[in-house]
Amino acid sequence: MKKRIYLDHAATTYLDPRVKKAMERCWSDDFGNPSTIYHEGRKAKRDIEESRKIIAGIIRSHPDEIIFTSGGTESNNLAIFGSANKYKKGHIITTKFEHHSVLNPIKFLEKNGFNVTYLDVGKDGIVEPHNVERELRPETILVSIIYANNEIGTIQPIPEIGKVIKDFREAHLEALLLSGSKASKWAVFHTDACQATGYLDMDVEKLGVDMMTVNGSKVYGPKGIGFLYVKRGVKLIPVMYGGEQENKLRPGTENVPAIVGLTEAIKIADKEKKEEMKRLTALRDYFIGRLIKEIPNVFLNGHPQKRLPNNINVSIMGVEGESTVLYLDNFGVSCSTGSACTSDSLEPSHVIMALGKDYEYGHGSIRFSLGKVNKKSDIDYVMKILPNIVKKLRLISAIK
Amino acid sequence: MKKRIYLDHAATTYLDPRVKKAMERCWSDDFGNPSTIYHEGRKAKRDIEESRKIIAGIIRSHPDEIIFTSGGTESNNLAIFGSANKYKKGHIITTKFEHHSVLNPIKFLEKNGFNVTYLDVGKDGIVEPHNVERELRPETILVSIIYANNEIGTIQPIPEIGKVIKDFREAHLEALLLSGSKASKWAVFHTDACQATGYLDMDVEKLGVDMMTVNGSKVYGPKGIGFLYVKRGVKLIPVMYGGEQENKLRPGTENVPAIVGLTEAIKIADKEKKEEMKRLTALRDYFIGRLIKEIPNVFLNGHPQKRLPNNINVSIMGVEGESTVLYLDNFGVSCSTGSACTSDSLEPSHVIMALGKDYEYGHGSIRFSLGKVNKKSDIDYVMKILPNIVKKLRLISAIK
Repeated sequence: MKKRIYLDHAATTYLDPRVKKAMERCWSDDFGNPSTIYHEGRKAKRDIEESRKIIAGIIRSHPDEIIFTSGGTESNNLAIFGSANKYKKGHIITTKFEHHSVLNPIKFLEKNGFNVTYLDVGKDGIVEPHNVERELRPETILVSIIYANNEIGTIQPIPEIGKVIKDFREAHLEALLLSGSKASKWAVFHTDACQATGYLDMDVEKLGVDMMTVNGSKVYGPKGIGFLYVKRGVKLIPVMYGGEQENKLRPGTENVPAIVGLTEAIKIADKEKKEEMKRLTALRDYFIGRLIKEIPNVFLNGHPQKRLPNNINVSIMGVEGESTVLYLDNFGVSCSTGSACTSDSLEPSHVIMALGKDYEYGHGSIRFSLGKVNKKSDIDYVMKILPNIVKKLRLISAIK
Repeated sequence: MKKRIYLDHAATTYLDPRVKKAMERCWSDDFGNPSTIYHEGRKAKRDIEESRKIIAGIIRSHPDEIIFTSGGTESNNLAIFGSANKYKKGHIITTKFEHHSVLNPIKFLEKNGFNVTYLDVGKDGIVEPHNVERELRPETILVSIIYANNEIGTIQPIPEIGKVIKDFREAHLEALLLSGSKASKWAVFHTDACQATGYLDMDVEKLGVDMMTVNGSKVYGPKGIGFLYVKRGVKLIPVMYGGEQENKLRPGTENVPAIVGLTEAIKIADKEKKEEMKRLTALRDYFIGRLIKEIPNVFLNGHPQKRLPNNINVSIMGVEGESTVLYLDNFGVSCSTGSACTSDSLEPSHVIMALGKDYEYGHGSIRFSLGKVNKKSDIDYVMKILPNIVKKLRLISAIK
């Protein structure tokens, strides 16, 4: 079979061979249940605690602030429901272009008595900190804003938003103390960093976040594993109940091989991100440049620089994104429309719509996300076939 | 290092090499995101659907009745919260000796307005169907009873309990129709089959269950994976929200390698369980016989025959179970007190207490759970050292 060109690393990544190797001993040798007190159990427990320490060192948190979960979706659900379930009502701020695993839990809460502000996103795919500032209220219990958007890759000014929230809380606390009120709502700041992990600064102190979601399967780690950073002092109500694992926040026997694998993946990403950032940024800009130059009526979605180094998202006017993806697939190229989680549906991307663009932009959007294996020759190949595919699809579309 | 004797297969199992092999191609070759529409995604989707079909064939369900989750705890939580969250109140029946991932979600519901009946368990560790019958009410929304108990291995008469519930529902439906009432509560029957999967009949039709929990890491499959069987017609409210995976009941990118591994593990278990049942039953009875004969004041917990072929649970009077476990560990033997999920705590086992026994039985209980690798020589080794350990511990205890 002809070698395929995989350009959908934002949907999921293959497992890095070094990660696979790190997990190896956990399958049948160090396989114990970490809750047991004998040799095999203690060894597994040490593996988890060691992993927690390594990750904490990288994101500059305390080890006990790392809660391992089954992935990004569960981490987002734990952050959101965990914050909200303490209250019967409250106010939540998020954006219109979050991942569905943030939007849908929040919509569920909205139906159940919470007030939600869905922030507008700029035409460049960036949320303005002052827009967050304007919406903060004493009843705000949670602000959840994605670090780097999964479809268009735009990087949000998380440290600036963190600062705005911190300032608000301080002023709010002062007002609370002066009024003698016992109301104790407190805006907790969460960010979904699933797409950001492989490339951006993950220092939670600098970011100023209280909670942060990370996922293994976007950073060449195993599937079915992730974590939620939960700052000390932030109290969450668990989503599930059972054993007392993970600081009593996430029950169930720990997935030790996957935890060890996730840790290795994050270690590798941390070590290699600087170089890879440089390499991919050049590749990305080369790709975007050619797309816009060589195919008429192609528009880049999202800020040209303030975006992930591996993200290329364009709207090709007059053609359905789905058709383009399927044609490219036929030629051995894998890429995506919108996010994978919604690619079964024919709705236009809610992310592109959030930028305030027309339906045509949403329907014609297509995402290429580069990864470790991609080279300039991959892009050259795409640029050899894509212009003709677009020409053909536009012709069909014109005939209809 | 001296070879260790692992006798805690009920806590977790090592990965069967055949399962490891089955998963191999999913790490870096067939690694696609099943929600995508191109080659790699379609392949991953096929892997999942094929897995669903194989499992459905084994438990005699429809493929769409299999909901993959991150394991037993999540499956139990989904079954319980998924059933309860449709209502503001209702009645739930369970037993006093369920796993914590059943008991704790139900206790949470109890605190939030649900009525709960915790059924007594017979001295032999078996729940009588007529006790279930007596407690069924028109408001009963859920009955959750473990298939084979995780600590003492006793097998519950699930088909008989299923029959009792079915009969009640039919009578109840008739009464409802006659009264013209619009009340629509309906007792759904769930069983936690995590420990049973490797050995017992998993035919959901014969069992008469509406929901059934299965876990990978108890059947030589991967950790972090399991499923919930949900009979067609049973409506659940999801616990988490995000993408529309798994019949819209469980969001998040599917853990394809683990799903493929779980399926292989269940296939192997199904094929080998008859032989293994025979082999382990003989080994178990040999072990129990020697324990009782050669150590004074040792009592078997749970029915001597109606128990899993790999479970040996005894109370050794006058010694703390923890101490015995640690001494055995020193001699290279791994076993457990109570279930692993609670082994950090010093509470006496809630399971042994549920049998109506004294604290001493609870504190002195110790569980050996056999597995594929165990042979008669392992038991002979334990029986060479354990009597002396007990003698020594009793001496220390007497001196205090």
